Amino acid sequence: MARSTPRHGPRDERGVLAARILQQARASFAEDGYAGTTVRAVARAAGVDPALVYHYYGSKEGLLDAATSPPRDFLDEIVAAWQAPQGELGEQLVRRMLRNWENPAHEPVLRAILQIAGHEPAMREKLRTIIERSMMGPAEQALGEPERLARSGLIATQFLGLAFMRYVWKIEPIATMTEDELVAGIAPTIQRYLDGDIGAAATARAVTGA
Amino acid sequence: MARSTPRHGPRDERGVLAARILQQARASFAEDGYAGTTVRAVARAAGVDPALVYHYYGSKEGLLDAATSPPRDFLDEIVAAWQAPQGELGEQLVRRMLRNWENPAHEPVLRAILQIAGHEPAMREKLRTIIERSMMGPAEQALGEPERLARSGLIATQFLGLAFMRYVWKIEPIATMTEDELVAGIAPTIQRYLDGDIGAAATARAVTGA
Repeated sequence: MARSTPRHGPRDERGVLAARILQQARASFAEDGYAGTTVRAVARAAGVDPALVYHYYGSKEGLLDAATSPPRDFLDEIVAAWQAPQGELGEQLVRRMLRNWENPAHEPVLRAILQIAGHEPAMREKLRTIIERSMMGPAEQALGEPERLARSGLIATQFLGLAFMRYVWKIEPIATMTEDELVAGIAPTIQRYLDGDIGAAATARAVTGA
Repeated sequence: MARSTPRHGPRDERGVLAARILQQARASFAEDGYAGTTVRAVARAAGVDPALVYHYYGSKEGLLDAATSPPRDFLDEIVAAWQAPQGELGEQLVRRMLRNWENPAHEPVLRAILQIAGHEPAMREKLRTIIERSMMGPAEQALGEPERLARSGLIATQFLGLAFMRYVWKIEPIATMTEDELVAGIAPTIQRYLDGDIGAAATARAVTGA
């Protein structure tokens, strides 16, 4: 590299190493579980000294947290989707969800969260928080809290199953259907969960607070 | 135990030990992954000799297969659900799905399959087969194969997400909603995926075979 055009300062170097460490950490947490993962093995797989991993992330817990924190613009994307007109929300949410997963900067993190949540209770709490934050839309409607939570929960069931089938397990034909095909199939579901009839019980809950 | 009323013959003994081994195997495969699981550790956790595990299941692979094979009446239940009148299929499928998961003989196996599928490609193949077999209903309709697979796939996305939220991760309020509340919310989704409008693309696929 020519000295006059340095392309890798210490900052870049840190970015490259951190990305490599987090990639190995995600693979290990997903495959071997939290208990089965060691900072030493992650460091070895990433080709760095374990001390560097501790320097960057503090502890195995800190490493797990960093490896499964969605990039900032992941949630920004979702917030943006909620700006769509009410009648288009189903479609916009499906499109944003698919594009988030197809963004190479987001996909490994999202996949790791779902894989690790299968066996790590702490990750489920994080997942719950992400779902909760992703569902600010219904909060802006004048809904009682129980109804808002019921609608958000139903939306989450559909999106999570779609994410598993299409991106984590890659089961056909869901894995290779086009965005437009998935929108045609799934957007009406999301739209109904948002503002359609989901049964009297949710309304009753909202009214009675039960 | 009185000699005249033996309640535990060798057959019962085998059943008890097998259940204990499979329970430990499920926990280990789910938490530590396939690579991180050893027959020796499973045997120790189950309080039996490793030789007995090999005697029953042949190998670690055989143990994984046994630990994640749904009980025979799990699929029988699903077949029965498909006998409902066309217009009630959505509701019947949701009810059977929930009851299968709430059956203590089925729940640990179903949960293990979903947890292990997160990181074991072989388990995804098994999951694909189970989904395929669970979806015989659309096969009985006069649908082209691509449309049948698209509809089955959409149904699977909804049921898998529901299973994760309610039974694997236990995220509220989905975890504690009543059967009737979930039927009111989700049955119309399943019914539409079965025989409603899921967009022109699936039909076009069916027509062109593309």
